[in-house]
Amino acid sequence: MSKFLKECYSTLDAYVPGEQPKDGEYIKLNTNESPFPPSSGVINAVNSQEVKKLRLYSDPTGAALKQKIAALYGVKENNVYLANGSDDILNFSFMAFSGDKGSAVYPQISYGFYKVFAALYGISAEEIPLKDDFSIDYRDYLNKNKFIVIANPNAPTGLCLPLSEIEEIIKSNSENVVVIDEAYVDFGGESAIPLTKKYDNLLVCQTFSKSRSMAGARLGFAIGNEALIADLELIKYSTNPYNINRLTLIAGAAAIDDDEYYRNNCKEIIKNREYTVNALKKLGFRVIDSRANFIFAESDRIDGETLYKRLKEERILVRHFSTEKIVNFNRITIGTMEQMQQFIKTVEKILEEVK
Amino acid sequence: MSKFLKECYSTLDAYVPGEQPKDGEYIKLNTNESPFPPSSGVINAVNSQEVKKLRLYSDPTGAALKQKIAALYGVKENNVYLANGSDDILNFSFMAFSGDKGSAVYPQISYGFYKVFAALYGISAEEIPLKDDFSIDYRDYLNKNKFIVIANPNAPTGLCLPLSEIEEIIKSNSENVVVIDEAYVDFGGESAIPLTKKYDNLLVCQTFSKSRSMAGARLGFAIGNEALIADLELIKYSTNPYNINRLTLIAGAAAIDDDEYYRNNCKEIIKNREYTVNALKKLGFRVIDSRANFIFAESDRIDGETLYKRLKEERILVRHFSTEKIVNFNRITIGTMEQMQQFIKTVEKILEEVK
Repeated sequence: MSKFLKECYSTLDAYVPGEQPKDGEYIKLNTNESPFPPSSGVINAVNSQEVKKLRLYSDPTGAALKQKIAALYGVKENNVYLANGSDDILNFSFMAFSGDKGSAVYPQISYGFYKVFAALYGISAEEIPLKDDFSIDYRDYLNKNKFIVIANPNAPTGLCLPLSEIEEIIKSNSENVVVIDEAYVDFGGESAIPLTKKYDNLLVCQTFSKSRSMAGARLGFAIGNEALIADLELIKYSTNPYNINRLTLIAGAAAIDDDEYYRNNCKEIIKNREYTVNALKKLGFRVIDSRANFIFAESDRIDGETLYKRLKEERILVRHFSTEKIVNFNRITIGTMEQMQQFIKTVEKILEEVK
Repeated sequence: MSKFLKECYSTLDAYVPGEQPKDGEYIKLNTNESPFPPSSGVINAVNSQEVKKLRLYSDPTGAALKQKIAALYGVKENNVYLANGSDDILNFSFMAFSGDKGSAVYPQISYGFYKVFAALYGISAEEIPLKDDFSIDYRDYLNKNKFIVIANPNAPTGLCLPLSEIEEIIKSNSENVVVIDEAYVDFGGESAIPLTKKYDNLLVCQTFSKSRSMAGARLGFAIGNEALIADLELIKYSTNPYNINRLTLIAGAAAIDDDEYYRNNCKEIIKNREYTVNALKKLGFRVIDSRANFIFAESDRIDGETLYKRLKEERILVRHFSTEKIVNFNRITIGTMEQMQQFIKTVEKILEEVK
């Protein structure tokens, strides 16, 4: 840190992304990437003719991609905001919608970035504990009179709230924005996008990183009331108008055209998730009921960190968090069936060793 | 604007990017893009194998690209910061380095985004007027005891300060960060990068958008003292760790490998600039002495806005600013010789009409 850094940032505890190993091949089940490549339409669209056009700025309005997203989700273009990954949307939301005094509510165990954004903007955060079964009790979020962010499905648990409960939260906090972070919704959750037509305080945040196999392209989008979207655009045009590069805009549009391919991939992931959950349960694991492309599991037979480390030695990466209440768990991204079979075989071997 | 937007942002006057026309072909001399495509190395590097890997996150450390930039500029990797376009670097610099009370100094006529960043962070800005000949007097920036940003070459004038004067500014403001924004330095300016080894308060900001033909890829970088770079990384990991997409990281590394191609392009631009300046002067224009890939020119024979509009009708786009002191000028990006000849021919025609 330099002596020049503004004091309010000097104590920031930044987000720590999952490992991106550089020491050779792993079965990489640690950052919730898709095991499937982007669709052939995406691969064809990002061609050398388009690379040549990189000399030109991208369309800062992203109109072509907005049109396609709007059509897919049955909203209008001015209900769609595009971002350089959904982290950017969360960032701007904490910045813009946390109220003049700055306050926010989110689950104590959730996407680890929420507390980083709260700290970044000096927001007083109310972190609501999960219930003992790791679920979110929607009643804890009623009438908060504060900016609210909920990941649905939640991470790293994978648990989902029904839309009826989400709606109660939105309805009872009509004077504040409620962000529903749906990064994992395509793997079995129910999207709140239809509710954006009914509630002007709802912002739904999605990403191309997981179900659409484009983590490396950095593309997120939000859907909400026109005025909320205009607010996000104002922040964007006051920070980085050309926030999304040309090739990502093109890839995103091609991905929407190939929606069926991605929906089939999601079905495949759900199938592989069922296999993995069942296999882990047979090995005595407690596995939280996930609606995401990852599962969250612990065992009495081996502590979470040891399992993580042993798996890594076996060239399988999963994600372990050292947060108190979940220290015995690991979050395991769902990959191909072959990868999950290899994972289960390796877990069996490790459990044999510690018997 | 929604009723939920934090009040401090409600009066923001966002940046207005140059037109990106969608109504057909123009000779596009309005946003300082390169007329040349990226190098063949870049076009080969961004291939379908890499597009397939978009399913994976990019390396948040950008290590491979940092190594190459460090080697090219004779600094260490931890002196290099990578960003999603250099706007991101300016944004973070205003955020992080404007001091606990928030103050900034920059030229009154310069890159229009500086005042947007100042407003965004509630920074009290001292905008120093240019001299009558549009030059920056470096003495105006000595001993300011505030965060300073200077574009060198300046935009939209194209004028350059010598490194000796830049050094005086840095030296006399040792308790504050001085950002030298070198977006256009490759077209005839002198980079302050070597001074980063001597001064811990200097941050030099460059971009791949102009001389490296990658405006659409969004890639900027900063070079400075290790501690300053660590500050920027802290802000990045507290906002958007995966700020640069995979393909841009790959394209950037390939571009550095092809440095000679880009240096030759710059020579070509400088040659075309000389042609254009001379031709405009022959037509009676006042042309500011530019060291950038654009020129700034006015004529007594036609007012700036009329010329801009008439050129647009002739399918040539230049950039006109309605700012008081420069309202009679246009900023003209330097393109290929063919484009500039067409531009001059068209200006001649327009001047004939208004005779």
